[in-house]
Amino acid sequence: MTQTFRVWAPWPKKVELQIGEVRMPMKVNADDWWTTEVSSAKAESDYGFVLDGKGPFPDPRSPWQPHGIDGASRLLDHKTFRWTDGNWQAPPLSSAIIYELHVGTFTPQGTFDAAIEKLDHLINLGVTHIELMPVNEFSGSRGWGYDGVDLFAPHHAYGGPAGLKRLVNACHARHLAVILDVVYNHLGPAGNYLEKFAPYFSRRYSSPWGEALNFDGAESHEVRRFFCDNALMWLRDYHFDGLRLDAVHAIFDSSAIPFLEQLAIEVKQMETQLNRPLVLIPESDLNDPRLLWEPGRGGFGLSAQWSDDFHHALHALLTGEKNGYYADFGTLADLGKALRHAYVYDGCYSAYRRRPHGRPPTGLNGNHFLGYLQNHDQVGNRARGERSGRLMSVGRLKIGATLVLTSPFIPLLFQGEEWGATTPFLYFTDHQDPKLGEMVRQGRRREFAGHGWDEHEVPDPQARETFQQSKLNWSEPSQSAHAELLEWHRCLIALRRSEPSLRDGCLDRIQTRHDETEGWLVVERGPFVIAGNLSDSPRRVPLPPGGHRLLMSSISMNNPENGSAVLPPDSVALYKKA
Amino acid sequence: MTQTFRVWAPWPKKVELQIGEVRMPMKVNADDWWTTEVSSAKAESDYGFVLDGKGPFPDPRSPWQPHGIDGASRLLDHKTFRWTDGNWQAPPLSSAIIYELHVGTFTPQGTFDAAIEKLDHLINLGVTHIELMPVNEFSGSRGWGYDGVDLFAPHHAYGGPAGLKRLVNACHARHLAVILDVVYNHLGPAGNYLEKFAPYFSRRYSSPWGEALNFDGAESHEVRRFFCDNALMWLRDYHFDGLRLDAVHAIFDSSAIPFLEQLAIEVKQMETQLNRPLVLIPESDLNDPRLLWEPGRGGFGLSAQWSDDFHHALHALLTGEKNGYYADFGTLADLGKALRHAYVYDGCYSAYRRRPHGRPPTGLNGNHFLGYLQNHDQVGNRARGERSGRLMSVGRLKIGATLVLTSPFIPLLFQGEEWGATTPFLYFTDHQDPKLGEMVRQGRRREFAGHGWDEHEVPDPQARETFQQSKLNWSEPSQSAHAELLEWHRCLIALRRSEPSLRDGCLDRIQTRHDETEGWLVVERGPFVIAGNLSDSPRRVPLPPGGHRLLMSSISMNNPENGSAVLPPDSVALYKKA
Repeated sequence: MTQTFRVWAPWPKKVELQIGEVRMPMKVNADDWWTTEVSSAKAESDYGFVLDGKGPFPDPRSPWQPHGIDGASRLLDHKTFRWTDGNWQAPPLSSAIIYELHVGTFTPQGTFDAAIEKLDHLINLGVTHIELMPVNEFSGSRGWGYDGVDLFAPHHAYGGPAGLKRLVNACHARHLAVILDVVYNHLGPAGNYLEKFAPYFSRRYSSPWGEALNFDGAESHEVRRFFCDNALMWLRDYHFDGLRLDAVHAIFDSSAIPFLEQLAIEVKQMETQLNRPLVLIPESDLNDPRLLWEPGRGGFGLSAQWSDDFHHALHALLTGEKNGYYADFGTLADLGKALRHAYVYDGCYSAYRRRPHGRPPTGLNGNHFLGYLQNHDQVGNRARGERSGRLMSVGRLKIGATLVLTSPFIPLLFQGEEWGATTPFLYFTDHQDPKLGEMVRQGRRREFAGHGWDEHEVPDPQARETFQQSKLNWSEPSQSAHAELLEWHRCLIALRRSEPSLRDGCLDRIQTRHDETEGWLVVERGPFVIAGNLSDSPRRVPLPPGGHRLLMSSISMNNPENGSAVLPPDSVALYKKA
Repeated sequence: MTQTFRVWAPWPKKVELQIGEVRMPMKVNADDWWTTEVSSAKAESDYGFVLDGKGPFPDPRSPWQPHGIDGASRLLDHKTFRWTDGNWQAPPLSSAIIYELHVGTFTPQGTFDAAIEKLDHLINLGVTHIELMPVNEFSGSRGWGYDGVDLFAPHHAYGGPAGLKRLVNACHARHLAVILDVVYNHLGPAGNYLEKFAPYFSRRYSSPWGEALNFDGAESHEVRRFFCDNALMWLRDYHFDGLRLDAVHAIFDSSAIPFLEQLAIEVKQMETQLNRPLVLIPESDLNDPRLLWEPGRGGFGLSAQWSDDFHHALHALLTGEKNGYYADFGTLADLGKALRHAYVYDGCYSAYRRRPHGRPPTGLNGNHFLGYLQNHDQVGNRARGERSGRLMSVGRLKIGATLVLTSPFIPLLFQGEEWGATTPFLYFTDHQDPKLGEMVRQGRRREFAGHGWDEHEVPDPQARETFQQSKLNWSEPSQSAHAELLEWHRCLIALRRSEPSLRDGCLDRIQTRHDETEGWLVVERGPFVIAGNLSDSPRRVPLPPGGHRLLMSSISMNNPENGSAVLPPDSVALYKKA
């Protein structure tokens, strides 16, 4: 088989291909792309690029790193996989129930194939989309994935390219859509050889996690091609239904046509080409509707963004936590505003940020936002990785689940949330460089020492045990306490999926009432009314005019009478208007 | 008179007011504003602020620095000036002829008052707006003004606050509008005490000229107040009709409501309050229409931007220069595109920038852009500050003037351009700190050494002579060679002011034809046709169908016959359709 090897490398004066034991010269064109043809390359040959006599280094676009970030790249032919999802179409995002999943901890084995065995659990739950935390190659065999480097290579420890394709194919066979989390704002500290090839990084800006990427300087069109081609590859060659874009606020770019807008345009074109819907879901802490507005409105045209304000309002209210960014939240009024306007901070002053924050999301609706009680960050960025189930009563978990799953936003659950998993989701790494490992270990301790933690209380991210502890315990969902919560989630999801009015995203149809002193909240959403009592005493809660039928309650309750209901402490009830 | 002194200063633990020989304590409020009242302050007392026992330092918002950047601040009562421009309304920008003026070199005396004596020259020329290069206090007594520091204080060497008011008042009395150039992207290297008071600067971004300002970090709302209040002060207290915003591409800000949008909103409100039109004119090298789009289109709503692409296309064509950014220009096709689309680089690849550049200016018109053959930067950033008159024949100067003054853009002339001033406009500074002076001197030499200049050929920016040489020679305009060019400009301006079709800004009514080999260009603008011959031979140039009457020609010509005209080398003719 004749194979063309190509690499963009303006910086070295000489580039050679190392394939097996053979080193071959490469020719450069005017655009600084080096190429060579190998007439007898085996289908899965190992290779790398030698730059000015140094290396070989992995291909920046390596499709497979079977030996990890520092090993050889391996050729891959996407045509050999036998897909069986011929007429697949993902359901629209407006009717999605998204389930965030970390391949390494979702199952005991921590592989793509093992995840397939748990898909029926998700189907039974009612999930429509799974969202995989980043799967591209990162340091060692354990990690969250946000410090990845080989953006085109599914992690070898998860099962590599073929394993990932089997997982996506199996999802589609079960009518589950699959979204992939990708990190386009920085690269990890280990195994990052990009800078040896070309100006992938920028000195104009500083990112909190490493060098900022070059999206607007000289040669940035090739850097953009790298990232756009990466996005298109996942959608085309791995059949993903969309991408979650990590922390786009750390993508610095002052171009007239920003990278994110270009990406959205190219994904739209791919959607037409593949003839199935594709979505782009940014994570952003800017509270800036520009991400979601259409280009004609001056926006980037992305599909929907993670809604941290809703999370923070809900979490701070249910836990009473006030540290860090939760200082900006905690009242029923905040939660009500989040439900009605998505952004709590839409231009008003944030005490945590010490400046006004955000902008009104004019023209957007609830389906432009994802709503969640927890996610990998909100759990894992705690010193001890406690999930919501460790931080609040079952009653409050049910209140949270009800508000998320009846919200105007696209609900997202974090793996195990549905049964109140007791296992933590800790921060874990597997850096092979001992110095870097120690830096990460100390960095983590220092971070939490500042918040009053003793260093022995902060799990060592480099320890295998920290990773093992973070794996879900699949004996839990069938235990009675967990089964009840699982059923609560299942019922709410079933209700949402059967009721179009819960999926219309209409923010202006939502009304909220609350009493901060008494601690109750009533949310009216079209024909549905959700009433919650967050106090430690029973509360009489006024309902909107008209009759109401009790659909679900977190503990046994009667139908309301005389326009009000009495709710026990820490309870929630869901009504339908008569 | 009781006077309240106020300063925002979160960083010092103690702030005192030094007024004359007296030092007084100040009290701080929750927003980190320190205040004190002085019951017996004289109208023009000198004062400063003492921070943690150090200083006194000038007031960041000092209204007057009679002794320069390091001296005391002086109180100022804006109510004492006797304005006589009661019902003044600036003409709309669409009908403007703007004249860029540097106070220090416009007249031999280099003062606001001396400039008043030359206003009749501008009136006779037909100018409608003057644009003052920055006048706020900068180092020493000579400088362009872009390295200023006391943003609220008109330069003492120009005549201070009262002098500036007299100039604006005198302009308005002659029906001349006045625009001020302000620098909101960095502060100068000398006399910058802001950092001692508060987080005015950001570490997240790097500006080419110094620390980037903090428009989006903690406390940025107060930094924005500083700049917005500065803009509002010039418009309200000095009666300016608008502001030119220097290099807005170096204003880094990823907020959901960017500073420039906030500034535009506040200036709109001031417009309503003052009941007269106000404009904001950014200089930007982003080719990004977002600056000019209305907020409903996702833009900042600024009035009009400097159009460097038109300048570069025109300059490169007329001079044949190919160095630096002129490498991206030089063809008749470029000039034609600039005339029809404002941006030559509207998303296409720029060899100079080594990336695609810009975005189509959808929905904008010619009145959103300023067009010019030269400006302070394009002249002064040359090693020897040569104006266009030193770089091309009189014929080409006339071609340039004709294309600028019949363009769809708002024409801008740089002082002396109208008569082809032979004096250079050099780069000059007057740093009092010898080290800084030497750094600037060496930096300038190094900059041009890279372009093949011997260091003795590069004038010393610190030398008084460099400044003196840059002053206009007012004996020139009456000399016959200059008088002819002056008359050419006067006639073109008179034509533009009398013909609405030259001021309608309609880009889609412009058609251009050219022949790169023969070197001719024909521009059709509604009822007008401009034909130019840039070759060294006579050229027969085809005119659009129909009859044409010759209005003006750079040298003697006949009316066209049989649908074409013969143009001598380096000549231009202006026709009106019969």
